[in-house]
Amino acid sequence: MAAEIVNPPSGTDTSDSPDDDYFDPAFALHRGGKMAVQATVPVDDRDDLSLAYTPGVAKVCTAIAEQPELVHDYTWKSQVVAVVTDGSAVLGLGDIGPEASLPVMEGKAILFKQFGGVDAVPVALDCRGVDEIVETVVRLAPSFGGVNLEDISAPRCFEIERRLQERLDIPVFHDDQHGTAVVTLAALRNAAKLSGRPLGALRAVISGAGAAGAAIAKILVEAGIGDVVVADRKGVVSADREDLTDAKRELAGLTNREGRTGSLESALAGADVFIGVSGGTVPERAVATMAEGAFIFAMANPNPEIHPDVAHKYAAVVATGRSDYPNQINNVLAFPGIFAGALQVRASQITEGMKLAAAAALADVVAGELSPECVIPSPFDERVAPALTRADAAAASADGVARR
Amino acid sequence: MAAEIVNPPSGTDTSDSPDDDYFDPAFALHRGGKMAVQATVPVDDRDDLSLAYTPGVAKVCTAIAEQPELVHDYTWKSQVVAVVTDGSAVLGLGDIGPEASLPVMEGKAILFKQFGGVDAVPVALDCRGVDEIVETVVRLAPSFGGVNLEDISAPRCFEIERRLQERLDIPVFHDDQHGTAVVTLAALRNAAKLSGRPLGALRAVISGAGAAGAAIAKILVEAGIGDVVVADRKGVVSADREDLTDAKRELAGLTNREGRTGSLESALAGADVFIGVSGGTVPERAVATMAEGAFIFAMANPNPEIHPDVAHKYAAVVATGRSDYPNQINNVLAFPGIFAGALQVRASQITEGMKLAAAAALADVVAGELSPECVIPSPFDERVAPALTRADAAAASADGVARR
Repeated sequence: MAAEIVNPPSGTDTSDSPDDDYFDPAFALHRGGKMAVQATVPVDDRDDLSLAYTPGVAKVCTAIAEQPELVHDYTWKSQVVAVVTDGSAVLGLGDIGPEASLPVMEGKAILFKQFGGVDAVPVALDCRGVDEIVETVVRLAPSFGGVNLEDISAPRCFEIERRLQERLDIPVFHDDQHGTAVVTLAALRNAAKLSGRPLGALRAVISGAGAAGAAIAKILVEAGIGDVVVADRKGVVSADREDLTDAKRELAGLTNREGRTGSLESALAGADVFIGVSGGTVPERAVATMAEGAFIFAMANPNPEIHPDVAHKYAAVVATGRSDYPNQINNVLAFPGIFAGALQVRASQITEGMKLAAAAALADVVAGELSPECVIPSPFDERVAPALTRADAAAASADGVARR
Repeated sequence: MAAEIVNPPSGTDTSDSPDDDYFDPAFALHRGGKMAVQATVPVDDRDDLSLAYTPGVAKVCTAIAEQPELVHDYTWKSQVVAVVTDGSAVLGLGDIGPEASLPVMEGKAILFKQFGGVDAVPVALDCRGVDEIVETVVRLAPSFGGVNLEDISAPRCFEIERRLQERLDIPVFHDDQHGTAVVTLAALRNAAKLSGRPLGALRAVISGAGAAGAAIAKILVEAGIGDVVVADRKGVVSADREDLTDAKRELAGLTNREGRTGSLESALAGADVFIGVSGGTVPERAVATMAEGAFIFAMANPNPEIHPDVAHKYAAVVATGRSDYPNQINNVLAFPGIFAGALQVRASQITEGMKLAAAAALADVVAGELSPECVIPSPFDERVAPALTRADAAAASADGVARR
């Protein structure tokens, strides 16, 4: 699931009717793809070629062979990210395969460029095994300064990311996990600030224990939330359940301090925060049991788990994944700046500290305009990427992973 | 070996002196790399995003999932080529590894764009085994419309190319082989035309049995040359030799109809054509034994196997790999147009017929200006890529490999 979903204005038909598909403006826009490569040096005459290609290029190659770190100075490696998928969990469409995922990967690539100034290349892989994906990305890595994993299904995405992080000395970041987590934490920080409550005083309930839900739970724990309870389709993720995957078992250990069991609805009673990344729906009667002044972040797209009109009856702050309501939780607020910062200082990884710093910086962007309708900036707020870049680069240095 | 070498004007220092490297204009030009990605659609506001990314993109993904061939219409797949290397045989530098090869791969990528309008992405792989390279490229293939293999050492390059061609339904082209072969054949066609002799009347000697030498020998045989003899460091490649690799054994079967043995020098006696892709040197006394009105294509860089001043004493037509002499045999004359044509008609492969058609089209570009100093166009001749694109697309259709 990719959470950086932008909805059309209400009333726009988003159906997949086959009859009118090819007259749809989305098809017109996509014809021929959405991206291109360009030379950033002249290759117009013999002299240009003799510098950009042979014989001039041979000296640069030789220098890199002798001093490998020069690859960062004299190639585009340090400014280009591979957007890697296997097409197994694309948007809400599920397992549509690598080629059908390409429009999303191209979209991601141009968002990297537009919002973070980071070059990015779609790499949709025709393989599914964790070992195969890991080996393939390791082999590709010399050409790239970072790896953005995208739309790879859980729980494989967790192991793939972990093993790639162990094997590679460049940032590996599964955006469906951490991008969503960073933006959610930023919104939560500002909501808490508005309400005058520290994060430690809040209990959050997360609906969804996939990539996004797990990562949000972890970052909230790291950020010092009072407690967080995660629910999947079978109810609250608790240590006593015998049907948990390894990833969910780990999650059960990190969350749910009070050892709650039972349904999502029962967990909501008295909860301060609802975070929906599931695509399910939550009945109003359960919403009504939340604590006073609750925060509801219902991020499913296109249909939030709790409709904003219902949410506003019970909550002090409401956020969604949709662009046609205030407070859109959109990954594009995070990944471009996070990678730009990491690449700027040639970070060997994106640490937890860098993610927390990114969330704090993102929250601070709207400090002056903070209101229940504005706990998170617009995706088009031009202050966002520079703020995250600075914060992320500084955090990389503080964490000792910066290489310049 | 990549043959599309462009030399600086005489007198330019091309030494690799470490003392002045970092003040060299090639280093200044390479700082930050030579290429970038750009969006070709607007992503400036919410409406743009809703078409280029979610929710609009989901319809395009769904359409491709249902009709896989639509990937060619609605993504950049059909206009982007992976420039794949393992860094094992980079220029004349040898095995410098994937990262040190990146400046060459970026250079290649921008030549694809500049000369053929084809997008290209450097993919330098950190693996060496034939199986590993083949598997990795197969896994990557969904994202690309073609694969240009580059600077992979012989004889692995032959097997890698053959196996990838078997596995993939997109063009796979080892430029060090076939690009060089196409340009050489084009020059030879025009030299033969100038001299009024048919190809069938000519005997050629090729110095070098690596990627370029093998491919040139094969295309000359296909084009109907009278005979061709290939020599490696141990002399003429003949079926009776017991030290031949599989690739050279195949070559021995295709060439050397007269069953010559012995040295390169002995093979040159009475030969009509010398083609050097070895980097060795040929003594003048051997050159003097060639047939009258010979053609000498001494393509080693920066030092041709036979210096042009010596060659002109004995030959009617002289070509080199250098840009500071007439008749530069430069791969950039071939690969951009060949791929542009193949991609235009979504060819599933680049057939022998397409290579022969490209060579004929390239030769024809200079038909009106044909002279001993002009048997091949300049790399900057703007007629070249369009001519090859047309010829290649037509040949793909004729050969039944075009998919539109």
